[in-house]
Amino acid sequence: MVKTILKYSCLAGVASLMASPAFAQEAPAHSVFILNSLLFLMSGFLVMFMACGFCMLEAGLVRAKNTTMQLTKNVALFSLAAIGYYLIGYNLMYPLGTWSVEGVLSGVIPAVAVLEAVGVAPDKVDDLSYASTGSDFFFQLMFCAATASIVSGVLAERIKLWPFLLFTFALTAVIYPLQASWKWGGGFLDSMGFLDFAGSTVVHSVGGWAALAGVLILGPRIGKYKDGRVVPMPGANLPLATLGTFILWMGWFGFNGGSQLAMGSIGDVADISRIFANTNAAAAGGALVALALTQVFYGKVDLTMVLNGALAGLVSITAEPLTPTLGAATLIGGVGGVIVVFAVPFLDKIKIDDVVGAIPVHLMAGIWGTLAVPLTNGDASFVTQLTSIFIVGVFTFVVSLIVWFAIDKIMGIRVSEEDELAGLDSAELGMDAYPEFSR
Amino acid sequence: MVKTILKYSCLAGVASLMASPAFAQEAPAHSVFILNSLLFLMSGFLVMFMACGFCMLEAGLVRAKNTTMQLTKNVALFSLAAIGYYLIGYNLMYPLGTWSVEGVLSGVIPAVAVLEAVGVAPDKVDDLSYASTGSDFFFQLMFCAATASIVSGVLAERIKLWPFLLFTFALTAVIYPLQASWKWGGGFLDSMGFLDFAGSTVVHSVGGWAALAGVLILGPRIGKYKDGRVVPMPGANLPLATLGTFILWMGWFGFNGGSQLAMGSIGDVADISRIFANTNAAAAGGALVALALTQVFYGKVDLTMVLNGALAGLVSITAEPLTPTLGAATLIGGVGGVIVVFAVPFLDKIKIDDVVGAIPVHLMAGIWGTLAVPLTNGDASFVTQLTSIFIVGVFTFVVSLIVWFAIDKIMGIRVSEEDELAGLDSAELGMDAYPEFSR
Amino acid sequence: MVKTILKYSCLAGVASLMASPAFAQEAPAHSVFILNSLLFLMSGFLVMFMACGFCMLEAGLVRAKNTTMQLTKNVALFSLAAIGYYLIGYNLMYPLGTWSVEGVLSGVIPAVAVLEAVGVAPDKVDDLSYASTGSDFFFQLMFCAATASIVSGVLAERIKLWPFLLFTFALTAVIYPLQASWKWGGGFLDSMGFLDFAGSTVVHSVGGWAALAGVLILGPRIGKYKDGRVVPMPGANLPLATLGTFILWMGWFGFNGGSQLAMGSIGDVADISRIFANTNAAAAGGALVALALTQVFYGKVDLTMVLNGALAGLVSITAEPLTPTLGAATLIGGVGGVIVVFAVPFLDKIKIDDVVGAIPVHLMAGIWGTLAVPLTNGDASFVTQLTSIFIVGVFTFVVSLIVWFAIDKIMGIRVSEEDELAGLDSAELGMDAYPEFSR
Repeated sequence: MVKTILKYSCLAGVASLMASPAFAQEAPAHSVFILNSLLFLMSGFLVMFMACGFCMLEAGLVRAKNTTMQLTKNVALFSLAAIGYYLIGYNLMYPLGTWSVEGVLSGVIPAVAVLEAVGVAPDKVDDLSYASTGSDFFFQLMFCAATASIVSGVLAERIKLWPFLLFTFALTAVIYPLQASWKWGGGFLDSMGFLDFAGSTVVHSVGGWAALAGVLILGPRIGKYKDGRVVPMPGANLPLATLGTFILWMGWFGFNGGSQLAMGSIGDVADISRIFANTNAAAAGGALVALALTQVFYGKVDLTMVLNGALAGLVSITAEPLTPTLGAATLIGGVGGVIVVFAVPFLDKIKIDDVVGAIPVHLMAGIWGTLAVPLTNGDASFVTQLTSIFIVGVFTFVVSLIVWFAIDKIMGIRVSEEDELAGLDSAELGMDAYPEFSR
Repeated sequence: MVKTILKYSCLAGVASLMASPAFAQEAPAHSVFILNSLLFLMSGFLVMFMACGFCMLEAGLVRAKNTTMQLTKNVALFSLAAIGYYLIGYNLMYPLGTWSVEGVLSGVIPAVAVLEAVGVAPDKVDDLSYASTGSDFFFQLMFCAATASIVSGVLAERIKLWPFLLFTFALTAVIYPLQASWKWGGGFLDSMGFLDFAGSTVVHSVGGWAALAGVLILGPRIGKYKDGRVVPMPGANLPLATLGTFILWMGWFGFNGGSQLAMGSIGDVADISRIFANTNAAAAGGALVALALTQVFYGKVDLTMVLNGALAGLVSITAEPLTPTLGAATLIGGVGGVIVVFAVPFLDKIKIDDVVGAIPVHLMAGIWGTLAVPLTNGDASFVTQLTSIFIVGVFTFVVSLIVWFAIDKIMGIRVSEEDELAGLDSAELGMDAYPEFSR
Repeated sequence: MVKTILKYSCLAGVASLMASPAFAQEAPAHSVFILNSLLFLMSGFLVMFMACGFCMLEAGLVRAKNTTMQLTKNVALFSLAAIGYYLIGYNLMYPLGTWSVEGVLSGVIPAVAVLEAVGVAPDKVDDLSYASTGSDFFFQLMFCAATASIVSGVLAERIKLWPFLLFTFALTAVIYPLQASWKWGGGFLDSMGFLDFAGSTVVHSVGGWAALAGVLILGPRIGKYKDGRVVPMPGANLPLATLGTFILWMGWFGFNGGSQLAMGSIGDVADISRIFANTNAAAAGGALVALALTQVFYGKVDLTMVLNGALAGLVSITAEPLTPTLGAATLIGGVGGVIVVFAVPFLDKIKIDDVVGAIPVHLMAGIWGTLAVPLTNGDASFVTQLTSIFIVGVFTFVVSLIVWFAIDKIMGIRVSEEDELAGLDSAELGMDAYPEFSR
């Protein structure tokens, strides 16, 4: 930035320089690089904390006898994502990286993610108008991990630990990064004009599709659907689930705000501000709609629906948190709340046993959010949005189905009936989450 | 750095440049705008997380049978505040907004909060020396929501959900913003010279007054005061209450630090740093004084007093976190701890049943903090502080009393005796917070 | 900033200005000061939240009957650290402060920590290339407090409250700051070339040594080692322990990232980015290694080992989070996981009863991390690292042993057998953490 300006500045007189829109728009290049990197670091630790939010949400919504397992899976999946995305995923996602189809076909051995040198000199930085590779890697990794977190809740209370982790590796190292490259790596969905600001489709629906494939192979929990009835299996610790929701809500400011990818100009920081405010409005809309609807339809407010309503509101606004007004954001999020209230019983009706409600929240509200983009963003095409949802959905679902099927054939993904009834904690781990409280 | 650059610019007269106060004091306007907005966004997500802190604190301090309700109220009030403040509150609070008494009287239909355009150009920004409207809205909304969070704890375990939410809407859309405009909207309290840096009075005492009005109409829990005795009703989950306190403690750095409203100069960032350090010192002072006093007076340290001592310390320093030394801040916070230790049993003596101790913490320590401003800030007048406390208190208490009374007449604010004894969770919501643990 | 400069710079030759390495490297001095201070404030609140992480981790790993005490100790120790570090520690740690051996010997009364004046003018700031004193104090205080947090977990379930707090004061006011000054105050370890980026030795091993000294005097819990067997005493609340681990993990980005001490240049922000990414990789490595090893050696994955593995990974990378590649960071953290899996049973074998596993995590992985610096940083010498570990260890261990011994002689540090069996909560505090759940 500064360089360009200075080329013209001496002879041209400073007054005109000051009026030039480019100058008016941005801080000097070094500040832009610093501020953008800072945005990624700050947003990154917020999105990292979402792993904790997912963990608490899920640990609160499973029964006590499966809680240690749910905690273990969440810590392990986040750790595994860090390895998978480092080893393969990051370079697979960005075409500028060392992985490429052509490269692999021509025998180039792909390399792991590499950060800038220590104390990198500005002239060694590829693009001073972007951000440090380290901050970009850190931020992007957290999105990849969030995708995996979505899966664990759906399949809770009956999937074995190691098969789940095997799938997690496939998801974070290959499935997620590959489809993400189609949009965020500058791939064909991006060229088509597909718009998905922070990933209603690229992150949330992908997690949802992968989980849906898994749950179809895994089947419902023993006793969940009995004689045509849906047997409630209430979560053991609702404060924990609420804590998880609040953590996710906070983390989402990083998720959506950081996806502006730039903080070095007045327009960018004002946009990030819009995004923060809209993200909050959508969560509020989703929560309140679920509150009202459960009161109206069930006669009683349902806290777990309210929590999932807030989360569905957040997912709904994720595809386009920038262009809506505060009112539109509230409504877009509110529709997410509607989806949750109707989709949760619907899934039970068709005997898809999603323990925490992640399919309504992440897959269905993710689709809604992606389709809602043209409502507030004139650059979006409804057909392109729909096509992209379809392509990403078919790819993720089919590949996930194959991977789940293969893992199931090789080692079996489901615990024995006996172990399931006893609870995974004592059967698989030998460690109770609340040894002094339950039973 | 500047020095090095200036080495090359000597012909133009460096000395005079360096001496110019504008140069010496501040970054360029665009950086100032970016840094101020960033301060609001960062502080805003910290204050947003305080909603989680309040929720956990209160959920830990109620009995297990009322926990789901307390969680529900906290998620709902935070969501409702987002709507109320968006629809009415924000523009009511700032005279530059579209709401105004004159406007309404002359028939101007008030409009909701409106953010800057997407990718706003610098020349379309009202005031480049401030921050983006979006970041300001986001930050201010969180203060409004905090006020409502204070109320929910006091009235826990016997108030119905919907009347509580109705009051929350009145509080966040009208009561809080109206009185806040008197100080922070440049109203008459501000003109009078009232000083309340981050809201010991404007936020904390207002929450306290609104809760006090509610508790007077609501009455104590059944069995709390029996035959002249105070019956202890211990909270079900002290780790949760402690977690909530730590979250509030962290969030308070945003609450007080963000209230500097500027981060674009050396003086501002150094002031924010003072505020962070003083805020922490005051919390520590409050906690340690409560620790020592409960040991001395009761012979045993009382954890809930220590937690409330820390919070009272934080409220105490909120009216003036900038001017005290670290030592003074510790003492100001310490007095907050004294207040808690004596006010909690005093309220019980006069049969005001404040479930979580929020009236001592937010109202009483809020008054103390406001009165303490002249001790370290020479610009403050004790009389003005007292007058302002009185005006805000009378307004909030009387209006709240009227609203609570009206809601009570219309729909009744208290659950039936039977429901209260059974617990709000099973009676009103049909959902236990800990279905496998309690009873 | 740029605007003003450019007005004067035209005649001086812009091309040469642009080529100057100093310009290319850094933002102007005021921006550097603001950005560095912001780094400390942001990192500081993250590290502050680690106090909550330690508290939750420990509260989850003790038995229900000792939970209120563990919560009380953690809130109290963090508060006490704020006072001790303010009154004595900060100035003891930095030789430029008012405390000094020479000063004290020559009768100069030491003074407490003093921040910059309110709204400090740039020409009154000591060093415009560093950061505000307030932000530095805030950040450094949190490191001091972290050291004390480490101690409380090891000694849980049998140490009295007040003796523990007395030791905490000695640790935070004197022991920690004195040895920290040898490295971070520019003392003799620093002159020797000792490298410890964020404190594997200076913070973590010091907490570990202080705890080890305490546990040797305190002895194991009653019934822990019986007839040659180690009796498991499982923690009451594993979700809480997991929450604490995730909070610590997030806080560590501030711990290590903030220790870059500068964010005002491209090289600095890229370095902080490396540090964030490496810190995460090391935690993931530690968790996954513990996951795999407990599966292999015990036949079952052990969640508490996985949590401690992640923490040991974080401690291991703390001495040098900058120079390793992502792969090296993962491996360095992974060795931390190995240490935990073998050291926890080893300590039990020699009857050192460390309730939460903090000695393996903070002391042993701290030593490993410090010794690993030369593996990736050419400026480090293995001998110097080892010597420094030894000096810090002997000093901390011996002084701590003396202080613990003295406190024990004066007032006794251990509760009575009866109180220990009943639990510290009812015996010492008269307040159950979960009055409705346990027993």
